[in-house]
Amino acid sequence: MTTTDMTAADASDSMRNGVDTATLFATLNAVKQAPEAAKFQFRAHNQWVSGTHNRGTIADYFGVGEERSHERTFVFDADHPAVLVGRDHGPTPTEFLLHALATCLTAGIANIAAARGVTLTEIESKVEGDIDLMGILGLSDSVRNGFQQVRVSFVLRGDEPEKLRRVVEQSRARSAVFDILTNGIPVAIDVDAG
Amino acid sequence: MTTTDMTAADASDSMRNGVDTATLFATLNAVKQAPEAAKFQFRAHNQWVSGTHNRGTIADYFGVGEERSHERTFVFDADHPAVLVGRDHGPTPTEFLLHALATCLTAGIANIAAARGVTLTEIESKVEGDIDLMGILGLSDSVRNGFQQVRVSFVLRGDEPEKLRRVVEQSRARSAVFDILTNGIPVAIDVDAG
Repeated sequence: MTTTDMTAADASDSMRNGVDTATLFATLNAVKQAPEAAKFQFRAHNQWVSGTHNRGTIADYFGVGEERSHERTFVFDADHPAVLVGRDHGPTPTEFLLHALATCLTAGIANIAAARGVTLTEIESKVEGDIDLMGILGLSDSVRNGFQQVRVSFVLRGDEPEKLRRVVEQSRARSAVFDILTNGIPVAIDVDAG
Repeated sequence: MTTTDMTAADASDSMRNGVDTATLFATLNAVKQAPEAAKFQFRAHNQWVSGTHNRGTIADYFGVGEERSHERTFVFDADHPAVLVGRDHGPTPTEFLLHALATCLTAGIANIAAARGVTLTEIESKVEGDIDLMGILGLSDSVRNGFQQVRVSFVLRGDEPEKLRRVVEQSRARSAVFDILTNGIPVAIDVDAG
């Protein structure tokens, strides 16, 4: 598909790569006019089940000036596998974190490609994180608790390779999860114990 | 329950808070003898569906010297809500990240309490993350992409409050996800585009 073809497609239909670009640009303009709309609060609730098995619930959030709810409540079990003294009722916490990274970069790629008129036919990715459990097991003070290195491998098909690579670079530059994982964030913990 | 009661319970039964403490201590000893067993690699796969909707799969990992598989393959959809130009087919990426934090701290609390002979009857938590989307929308260079602040609120019931608080503190000190989120990790991105 040539650039001319894409411009013609844009004029006739604001959908690209499953992204409604008219709504995307309208949203960007609305936020530019009213920056308060961009202040969001996301939330997760968690309830312990037994041992390393616990259950998270994601339902409500704040954004565009008001309390909101997802269309349904999302429930996710987490656990350790048997080799880590759990019962494998769900992924481990760090696997959810790798999943969060892949999904943030992927959504960004789709949005940015649509905004730029870049066609995508496929986005696949694999995320790997290396961790030495001597840290979290408390068996070494010189080994960190978290991942020592994370690698993301993307396979993209669609437009010219160089255009696709620039879209990935922009997604990385504007990814919430990539920023959090690479730069860190302040986390406060409050305990009501009794 | 007094300390004497707990010691008696320990002798008769290695299960505490749903944690098999005999297996937990055996695992710690085994890793102490063979530190290579502690080297793990966790993974997530992701496939784009359409727009901001994509699907993550968590199935295999490496640990204790060999390739392993979870007892089943875990599949999680992610999306943006309509207010963020998505279709709400799943949580947003950053909500998965908050979920990962809650589940890591909760599993740690259960394990550490069991190892210390501390009884738990309830662990509930809420995680909130404040984010200003002016960053990821590319509308401000002075606003970061990720959360500006995350707060975790735990409610714990069981043993004496001070013991429970010390367990939470130790879980924080040995949490993989807490370390990753607060200290950051190196993330490399590779692209096969064509």
